[in-house]
Amino acid sequence: MTFDRFDALVRQRGATLVGELKDLIRLPTVSAQDRAIDETARAVLDRARRAGVDASAERVDGGPPTIVGETGSGDRTLLVYDHYDVQPPDPLDEWRTPPFAPTERDGYLYGRGVSDNKGNLMARLQAIELYREAFGSLPLRVRVLFEGEEEIGSDHLAAFVAKYGGRIRADGCIWEAGYKDAAGRPTISLGLKGIAYFDLRLRSIEKDAHSSMGTILPNAAWRLVWALSTLKNERDEITVDGLMDHVRKPTKDDLALLEALPYDEEEMKRIHGVAAFVRGLTGTPLKVKHFLEPTCTICGLTSGYSGMGSKTVLPAAASAKVDFRLVPELTPALVKDLLRKHLDRRGFTDIEIASHHGELPSRWPSDTPVAKAAVEACRATYGTDPVVYPLMAGSGPMAQVCDALGIPVVGFGSGNAGSANHAPNENVKVSDYLDHIRAFGRFLHVFGGRSL
Amino acid sequence: MTFDRFDALVRQRGATLVGELKDLIRLPTVSAQDRAIDETARAVLDRARRAGVDASAERVDGGPPTIVGETGSGDRTLLVYDHYDVQPPDPLDEWRTPPFAPTERDGYLYGRGVSDNKGNLMARLQAIELYREAFGSLPLRVRVLFEGEEEIGSDHLAAFVAKYGGRIRADGCIWEAGYKDAAGRPTISLGLKGIAYFDLRLRSIEKDAHSSMGTILPNAAWRLVWALSTLKNERDEITVDGLMDHVRKPTKDDLALLEALPYDEEEMKRIHGVAAFVRGLTGTPLKVKHFLEPTCTICGLTSGYSGMGSKTVLPAAASAKVDFRLVPELTPALVKDLLRKHLDRRGFTDIEIASHHGELPSRWPSDTPVAKAAVEACRATYGTDPVVYPLMAGSGPMAQVCDALGIPVVGFGSGNAGSANHAPNENVKVSDYLDHIRAFGRFLHVFGGRSL
Repeated sequence: MTFDRFDALVRQRGATLVGELKDLIRLPTVSAQDRAIDETARAVLDRARRAGVDASAERVDGGPPTIVGETGSGDRTLLVYDHYDVQPPDPLDEWRTPPFAPTERDGYLYGRGVSDNKGNLMARLQAIELYREAFGSLPLRVRVLFEGEEEIGSDHLAAFVAKYGGRIRADGCIWEAGYKDAAGRPTISLGLKGIAYFDLRLRSIEKDAHSSMGTILPNAAWRLVWALSTLKNERDEITVDGLMDHVRKPTKDDLALLEALPYDEEEMKRIHGVAAFVRGLTGTPLKVKHFLEPTCTICGLTSGYSGMGSKTVLPAAASAKVDFRLVPELTPALVKDLLRKHLDRRGFTDIEIASHHGELPSRWPSDTPVAKAAVEACRATYGTDPVVYPLMAGSGPMAQVCDALGIPVVGFGSGNAGSANHAPNENVKVSDYLDHIRAFGRFLHVFGGRSL
Repeated sequence: MTFDRFDALVRQRGATLVGELKDLIRLPTVSAQDRAIDETARAVLDRARRAGVDASAERVDGGPPTIVGETGSGDRTLLVYDHYDVQPPDPLDEWRTPPFAPTERDGYLYGRGVSDNKGNLMARLQAIELYREAFGSLPLRVRVLFEGEEEIGSDHLAAFVAKYGGRIRADGCIWEAGYKDAAGRPTISLGLKGIAYFDLRLRSIEKDAHSSMGTILPNAAWRLVWALSTLKNERDEITVDGLMDHVRKPTKDDLALLEALPYDEEEMKRIHGVAAFVRGLTGTPLKVKHFLEPTCTICGLTSGYSGMGSKTVLPAAASAKVDFRLVPELTPALVKDLLRKHLDRRGFTDIEIASHHGELPSRWPSDTPVAKAAVEACRATYGTDPVVYPLMAGSGPMAQVCDALGIPVVGFGSGNAGSANHAPNENVKVSDYLDHIRAFGRFLHVFGGRSL
């Protein structure tokens, strides 16, 4: 059993396979604007059924339709997570061709959602279909979970998982995304950081006063500065009381994974215009901090006068936007609690903490069957060892599905280092798209217990 | 020699005296907009000459006309400093009557400049004229210095003083302003704080990055917070290296002056909506801090995202607007130098310090002849001891004149606690205006060596 026939089908049907993706991209499924949600859900449901998936569209608590279904049978069950909604296409005038008029140019396909995440969704359904055509039947049970509000915070996902957990339980999960890095190497990820985003704000006096009163009136900007300066020190160490106690120390395996991980420091420094990273870090310690440690980032500061020239004002109000990227075992609720106690202990009871969207971290070992199958499938497809990331620096609702149900996870896909997710001119290379079908077919094969 | 005849003249001519002020207010002398400057300078020059002042209009380096002149003779010379320009009248729609159409209402005169500072300028010229009419001749030499760009920073004043110092030297100076406090007590001031206003700004990376990069990229907002937190501590103590070493300690006389100074703490707390002043200060220590200590005030903070909701951004740039109110012996140049060294010593060489307008502090003893004459004149006019402020919390170009030439200074005038200088519906009480003429006549008398 070789993949000759499977690969031949992908090659022969290339135009049709890409054409199906284009049809899906033409639907402007902008969840933030509630556009084309039902229409896209129906198209995805139909396509899943044509791939042989016994699927239905389910809603919980007034949320958008979630497509859930299964196909095949075997000792193992794989869960495929994708989302059919996309980011708003703004700024429109920066697109070379319209975001919902998918266009091929120089070997790339442009359009909103081709990379994030309609492309992988479609490629995986096509791979299931082609695998059955090439090999007669699937070597495992495949379950799908396609949600329609990932780009606006997956507000109904936890409730969905609670209600329909029985239909999505599995032995492994493939998450939505993956890409080739700037050097063209396929990458695999084993998890995502979580996030906790807060507004810290206070008011020290009723309204702005003349700055000559700075002698005796409390200044909101100063109180904010003093409070913030206790959260992280100049060595970039998070000093929120007790927070770092909840951070898992890197294991030998983690360090081995990171040592093997290529990270082009010079290129990163060039892109961001810096002479050095924080603390002058380099090599494995740099990678440990980037991939396995939490952050405490001031995303915004606002107080008083910000215009040209001078205004002699003592600000009554001040606020900071602060996000924490979370690694196990940090959670948004824990961080908020630690932050509240930390501020209170230092007398900053007047600083209000307002929470925005939060996500738990989700991190999985590199030696699970699903991770090993992904590595093997990518190696066979691309002819090179994939780069394995222990934890992506970004965030997503992975924990709501995989941690909730105890499903080890892996991520790989059809993107590239310049795919411009969430930005104008989002793209995938057409050959990368077809290669993801080939890789996913092999992944089904290996995770289903067969040999390449 | 009593003031019966002088006071009778003020009473009889009341309508004419106020009418002359109204004529001056009708000229829209907005220096920021270069409006009616020459016209007003000519009107002031004419009025000074009619009062017997041998005056001329002089310009230095393309600045506006400065009216300079003298009249009378005697052992002592008094310098009268006022400015004939006014603040812009905006916001216009908040004026009950137009700013340049002076209007009497319920015993008050409304119009831009009636308090700051055309009113005192006119009242003092009128007092000189009436004094001569009542007493035959002035008991001293009076010199006048009326500038036309105080509201935009007095950019040519230092050069004027350097060139025309011989025409304005004096044994004492009366500064532009003064007012009755909220309890209706006349006040006298013996100086002004200086000011140094800076933009502190830095850029840590080329452009804003995704906040997931907060692990390893330097964050401009954090660096700004860390730097600011070294400038003043939570006890509201300025911790810029060496700065407080340049601050004069209060003398016994200072403390006596402040102990006698009424300061309505409860009313101030009510106005600003605070439960307590910084450090929980009260009584004389509160007054010492307010009147005799410098400030370091964050007037504005700007970095990253300040809109609704969340944006996961790592800011490339951050800036703070910071003003220092200066007491002797602090100067803007000294503060900038100390600040630069303080930041450099802590590794914040990347923080740029940009200076805005600065003014030196100017502080004078309470036992100078000019100060004693002011107290005696006010006591005689108002029938009560005036409240004496050692140093006003605000700033002005006093040092450019008085410290440059070594002229002790005092300030009192026709304003009230609600005069709304720089704001809509600027006003003086008509009776306060006429009382300032009466007080100024007595001040000439006493400073000229005569007894009341």
